[in-house]
Amino acid sequence: MEKPYVLGIDVGRTNTVFGVVDARGNLIMSSSIKTGAHNDLDDYIKDLVAGIEPLLEQVGGKDKIRGIGVGAPNGNYYTGSIEFAPNLPWKKTQIPFAQILKDALGIPTALTNDANAAAIGEMTYGAARGMKDFIVITLGTGVGSGIVVNGTLVYGHDGFAGELGHMIVRRNGRMCGCGRQGCLETYTSATGVARTAREYLDIRSDKSMLRDIQPELITSKDVYDAAINGDGLAQEIFETTGAILGEAFADFVTFSSPEAIILFGGLTKAGDLLMNPIRHHMDKNILNIYRGKTKLLFSQLKESDAAVLGASALGWEAK
Amino acid sequence: MEKPYVLGIDVGRTNTVFGVVDARGNLIMSSSIKTGAHNDLDDYIKDLVAGIEPLLEQVGGKDKIRGIGVGAPNGNYYTGSIEFAPNLPWKKTQIPFAQILKDALGIPTALTNDANAAAIGEMTYGAARGMKDFIVITLGTGVGSGIVVNGTLVYGHDGFAGELGHMIVRRNGRMCGCGRQGCLETYTSATGVARTAREYLDIRSDKSMLRDIQPELITSKDVYDAAINGDGLAQEIFETTGAILGEAFADFVTFSSPEAIILFGGLTKAGDLLMNPIRHHMDKNILNIYRGKTKLLFSQLKESDAAVLGASALGWEAK
Repeated sequence: MEKPYVLGIDVGRTNTVFGVVDARGNLIMSSSIKTGAHNDLDDYIKDLVAGIEPLLEQVGGKDKIRGIGVGAPNGNYYTGSIEFAPNLPWKKTQIPFAQILKDALGIPTALTNDANAAAIGEMTYGAARGMKDFIVITLGTGVGSGIVVNGTLVYGHDGFAGELGHMIVRRNGRMCGCGRQGCLETYTSATGVARTAREYLDIRSDKSMLRDIQPELITSKDVYDAAINGDGLAQEIFETTGAILGEAFADFVTFSSPEAIILFGGLTKAGDLLMNPIRHHMDKNILNIYRGKTKLLFSQLKESDAAVLGASALGWEAK
Repeated sequence: MEKPYVLGIDVGRTNTVFGVVDARGNLIMSSSIKTGAHNDLDDYIKDLVAGIEPLLEQVGGKDKIRGIGVGAPNGNYYTGSIEFAPNLPWKKTQIPFAQILKDALGIPTALTNDANAAAIGEMTYGAARGMKDFIVITLGTGVGSGIVVNGTLVYGHDGFAGELGHMIVRRNGRMCGCGRQGCLETYTSATGVARTAREYLDIRSDKSMLRDIQPELITSKDVYDAAINGDGLAQEIFETTGAILGEAFADFVTFSSPEAIILFGGLTKAGDLLMNPIRHHMDKNILNIYRGKTKLLFSQLKESDAAVLGASALGWEAK
């Protein structure tokens, strides 16, 4: 193959991680720079390019790279821009990120948001190989989604489709960072799980290991550790979280009837603690004609590399 | 054009309506038979074919027909079958309707459910011409949906995608014919509107013209007539119905970010009485990045012909 590699870039609020990936989804080499340390966009791009160039040299130069794929918060596939991203250090409403990189490196570049990148990653290298209809749900600090229909990512008319973390699952429910109430991510993200823990500890009086931790410092990891050590309250938190996800998934299925829903991101480390209640409540709430048809799977991308692999997959089709 | 026409067939529980349609969406001629009068499927097919043949002769024979499109309850595009349709007279779990017609008439035939047919009709001849991403919502006895993404109908992995009438909008809400509670259609179908009327009349004591009608006989048409005659309670019923639809539409947008949501079916006769609250509540509940972007439109297919036109549009791509 003349151009056997792609370059994946995951723009996170703390770090920007990038790496060279082959057609089988092996991360050949990778590196990173601090996103947060760059308040000036030009400086950031300069450092990013300086970080990428040595990787390109090691694989035989930029001619070996088919394309660059970028996953970024609020990344818009149609425009190749990062739009209105509240958590990145550059105060611009629209950053033509794909074009900037293409100009700097001379390689075709495509960009999308991180959850869409995860979906393309699963389709190219992971749990969704061979599938034409599936949904990836990312359970991290927030909840994101990438939806594939007929083998193509759903971008919608404006490039912003697939924000299932902001489906409203409880009318007048928890306040969300988006300014509305009751969004899925306020309950089922890693931070949502910690929030449920604080809520339970506050309104209930039963014993729990979680009471040993200062409430505002509790993380989803603490809830997980308590749950696997037999803490009943912590187990209930996962039960509730899974119930809300299962109900939501039953509704998602009425939309695109996917072959699988694939869970991705930090919270999936909870494994069966989360998957069992999701499966139970999805099955309980689903319309008859869909029952038992949609698989529930965990991501098959290696956790530490997943974001870069997902982004890189977009590079194969970059123009 | 050698084959300038298609044949559309709308299989309803009472009547089966069929007609010949040209490429501009003009219904050239049409006819119908009684669905309900045929308990035997073979008799029904015989009468249907006997009804269709004179139409074919009048347009110059079957060689003038590019294809047949069928809209039917629980129609599955992939299999060409009507599956588990509870309201049709034939007690079969799977009727290979497209194949039966193809064999009987020798014309390529495709089949889908009625709401999907409506979506293809809007895309081919109606309000969605030129659009690649939109959703059609049918508001009739039930609530159905046809979702188009990237210019293609969303069928899902099993052919049953797009049952948005069964999205759960109120947990533990109204009982639905599907056996679950709180589905969108229990509130926002024509029957849902009548149900709301009975509920309001029962729990409230304010005056209303609707009190002159026996509660179990109230229809959405009665509620409409009362509302346009200034009846406050009837107007509130449309306000509530529109609010639930608007909230649901805001959630639908997070999925596929459509250019438009198009309303189709009997209840749309309510016009602004329904559209104004939908618009208000959709706007109020929508995620910021989508606000003001998705058009709300009424179907542009002529009401009386709409179902046949929708079905016929599928005939252009029948194989």
